[in-house]
Amino acid sequence: MLQNPPRITSTASIVGPKEGKGPLRLFFDNIIEDEMWGEKSWEKAESKLIRETFSKVLQKGNKTSQEIDYVISGDLLNQCIAANFGLRESDVPFFGVYGACSTIAESMSIGAMLVDGGFADNVVCITSSHFCSAEKQFRFPLELGTQRPPSAQWTVTGSGGVLISNDGSGPYITHITTGKIVDMGIKDANNMGAAMAPAAVDTIVTHFKDTGFTPESYDLILTGDLGAIGREICVELTREQGFNIENIYNDCGLMIYDREKQDTHAGGSGCGCAATVFAGFVYKKLMDGTLKNVLFVATGALLSPVSTQQGESIPSIAHAISITTSPER
Amino acid sequence: MLQNPPRITSTASIVGPKEGKGPLRLFFDNIIEDEMWGEKSWEKAESKLIRETFSKVLQKGNKTSQEIDYVISGDLLNQCIAANFGLRESDVPFFGVYGACSTIAESMSIGAMLVDGGFADNVVCITSSHFCSAEKQFRFPLELGTQRPPSAQWTVTGSGGVLISNDGSGPYITHITTGKIVDMGIKDANNMGAAMAPAAVDTIVTHFKDTGFTPESYDLILTGDLGAIGREICVELTREQGFNIENIYNDCGLMIYDREKQDTHAGGSGCGCAATVFAGFVYKKLMDGTLKNVLFVATGALLSPVSTQQGESIPSIAHAISITTSPER
Repeated sequence: MLQNPPRITSTASIVGPKEGKGPLRLFFDNIIEDEMWGEKSWEKAESKLIRETFSKVLQKGNKTSQEIDYVISGDLLNQCIAANFGLRESDVPFFGVYGACSTIAESMSIGAMLVDGGFADNVVCITSSHFCSAEKQFRFPLELGTQRPPSAQWTVTGSGGVLISNDGSGPYITHITTGKIVDMGIKDANNMGAAMAPAAVDTIVTHFKDTGFTPESYDLILTGDLGAIGREICVELTREQGFNIENIYNDCGLMIYDREKQDTHAGGSGCGCAATVFAGFVYKKLMDGTLKNVLFVATGALLSPVSTQQGESIPSIAHAISITTSPER
Repeated sequence: MLQNPPRITSTASIVGPKEGKGPLRLFFDNIIEDEMWGEKSWEKAESKLIRETFSKVLQKGNKTSQEIDYVISGDLLNQCIAANFGLRESDVPFFGVYGACSTIAESMSIGAMLVDGGFADNVVCITSSHFCSAEKQFRFPLELGTQRPPSAQWTVTGSGGVLISNDGSGPYITHITTGKIVDMGIKDANNMGAAMAPAAVDTIVTHFKDTGFTPESYDLILTGDLGAIGREICVELTREQGFNIENIYNDCGLMIYDREKQDTHAGGSGCGCAATVFAGFVYKKLMDGTLKNVLFVATGALLSPVSTQQGESIPSIAHAISITTSPER
């Protein structure tokens, strides 16, 4: 529980063409026309997503980079190069983080504590993913035309960022529940929703037990990218532990695409999924009063191609952030 | 500046056979006999380094894992699998971080703020690197027998960890200077010391200007792994900015190997370099009173093989931590 809950005073989101045709298209700040965005490689395009999202967060929050005390960022690429290269001109003290698709919630957790603890006045948290660079790195090069199994998810091309401040206006971050690594032995890198769901359940149940909140405390409990299969597991396992979240539960991976028309199988995933859905859609619904209390639980699968090739299972993690428009709730 | 400086109450270090023949061999807790350490791959051996170092930090600090509020960890492998797999049984809230070879200082910076801010009582910070897994991933597979240029550094096989607490005994962390990404356009992945030196200089000079400390405030200013070439650049560029650190300056990469007898060219590097030299050697010298005031500046090269293949330069970063035996200095 934060003593002086910081506020989320600005957000920005930029997405790819496919995300720009999905149900949330009206909520994003910018939709790029093609996956290269004028760059020479997918990786450089992903760095540009981070760089431009950072600029837009500052612009929408009326801040200059000199007013930002920390930027906290990470992504899915090897050695987090989207963040490292995207922010190299930012001239702001930088913490690189890696929590796979949970990265936006990890960075917001650290950012909120740095502001609450008085170490910073303004922190920007930002992540990205890119369908083409992620497929190339984690699964198969796109040129192979490999068939995707129905349990596979579609990595979101996009970047989302938030500005966390000790003044200004916007919803408050009041509680943080940091996840532990959970590994239930699932080894199928094409079924990450199932691998990540137990981590989400562990964090959600821990959050309820630690804070005394219940599902009724929230209008929305939002996981990162469990997709269709992970969603069912999450609802069921949470119910087994005595909490029924079904009526107020949704998943960013199920919201960002029209699954029937867009052929994304089990739904969206990637660091950019939770980040753009939160920064684009959820934040605006908090600002216009449609949502009042949100538990944002981004989830991450902590695998690599090397660990999968060596026969390893998929350790997972989920970080929860409790966000409200009235901290006296 | 931390208001209630936390203490480093325990450290542990485990190194590989080559490091175990170097000048600091008597200061490490454990020297493994071969690079596989009974595992089936170098990556699994590196995970074991993290896992066993975590156990040893707790054991030496008389703590159980239930008493640890956070573990903050990262490494050089793709998607940080040494940390993710090494700590998956820890059952402790986990933040993954990535700062290349600066990771130990990044994790200690965040850990110190979490303790100082009252968010945690005990935090473990831990990193690793492994010569064989790093060469395979960043340069060439060892089986190729590729000749190394004289400017190349030797990735340390080892893991170092520290316990940061709000009580107990041990030296204090009083100030943190978080680095910005610095990119001077150097593109040679075999000369990372030169790429990282300007980042170290930026952080050291910023530290002096922010805090009012001078080189005379310290017995030792210790960079992470600039090696022989980076060392010269660091001393020279710092002098140009008005601070002469030459007499109290050293570099972990120059301390861990006997360069004449061990054929490591420009010196050691890797997340495990600064971590084991600090946890093994420097901490013991602080505890026995030989050292009183240390500025620990771990440095990281934020590249990946993909960025190098795409012709990119090497963005770098350095994080500084001011450590003292008497916080009233």
